[in-house]
Amino acid sequence: MKRVLVDMDGVLADVYRQFLDFEFRETGVRRDPAVTFGLSEPEAFPFYEKHVRMPGFFRTAPVMPGSVAGLEYLNGRYEVVILSSATEFPQSLSEKAFWLNEHFPFIDWRQMVFCGRKDVVRGDIMIDDHPKNLRSFPGEKIVFTQPHNAGLALPDCIRVSAWDEIVRML
Amino acid sequence: MKRVLVDMDGVLADVYRQFLDFEFRETGVRRDPAVTFGLSEPEAFPFYEKHVRMPGFFRTAPVMPGSVAGLEYLNGRYEVVILSSATEFPQSLSEKAFWLNEHFPFIDWRQMVFCGRKDVVRGDIMIDDHPKNLRSFPGEKIVFTQPHNAGLALPDCIRVSAWDEIVRML
Repeated sequence: MKRVLVDMDGVLADVYRQFLDFEFRETGVRRDPAVTFGLSEPEAFPFYEKHVRMPGFFRTAPVMPGSVAGLEYLNGRYEVVILSSATEFPQSLSEKAFWLNEHFPFIDWRQMVFCGRKDVVRGDIMIDDHPKNLRSFPGEKIVFTQPHNAGLALPDCIRVSAWDEIVRML
Repeated sequence: MKRVLVDMDGVLADVYRQFLDFEFRETGVRRDPAVTFGLSEPEAFPFYEKHVRMPGFFRTAPVMPGSVAGLEYLNGRYEVVILSSATEFPQSLSEKAFWLNEHFPFIDWRQMVFCGRKDVVRGDIMIDDHPKNLRSFPGEKIVFTQPHNAGLALPDCIRVSAWDEIVRML
């Protein structure tokens, strides 16, 4: 059975919505999401560093539309491993595991990997929004469209913009 | 450069001492460590499940003698990745990252992997106390002696009982 490595932030967790919500709480100004297009997350969000280190940021992140049904579908057909970059922000680690347990209860703790570098983990298919993770991956690469990658060509990746596209493809 | 996968509990963290200390705080009785020989950790420690889920258990674990100097030595000669089973106990995840940051500051967040199953991670050498992790590993296997594995033969593993043995060997 093929192993699918599924990223969290930007694929299961709608971190852009969370950044915009935290920014609104910080400044009282609700920004137009369009201004984030083409920028890296630290460039797009002036309080990036403060907010990713704030308790609750990852624990309360909104769930990406369609991801619960989509991941449940994948989980019945593939060996699913959730693979999330998390060790840079130690408090995020527990928050991410609790968040997965709450929103994706069909994902077992044996299916979770939290790391710093994703190239130490083996898999056949990778779904991720960060080109740096996909670049070094030797298997099938699926890039999930997020504002920071929307303008990039990525010719060796299949691009999807929503979970129903993943379900139709896999 | 060869990649060495280094386990935490039973290799970097002296979890047996922590279990015995937590049991003493629970019962007022200090048990002879010898009674744990040959038993799995849940068999050896009546309050295993309660204590591993208790906030602070992993954050305050004693450091294995010789492991700081030993790991620093390895870190200069190999690509070291700390690989710890942690996702079964969500609160342990953050505690383990903070613990590593405190006691092993030369280990970068990019060198940490917290998982459920270790066989998804690639490496050349694995240092672990749990035969179940070593069994499926295709590279060089080093078993770190702990009471639960002390009586097992493990013919395809090199057995070490202390960090200075690892340093002499690698």
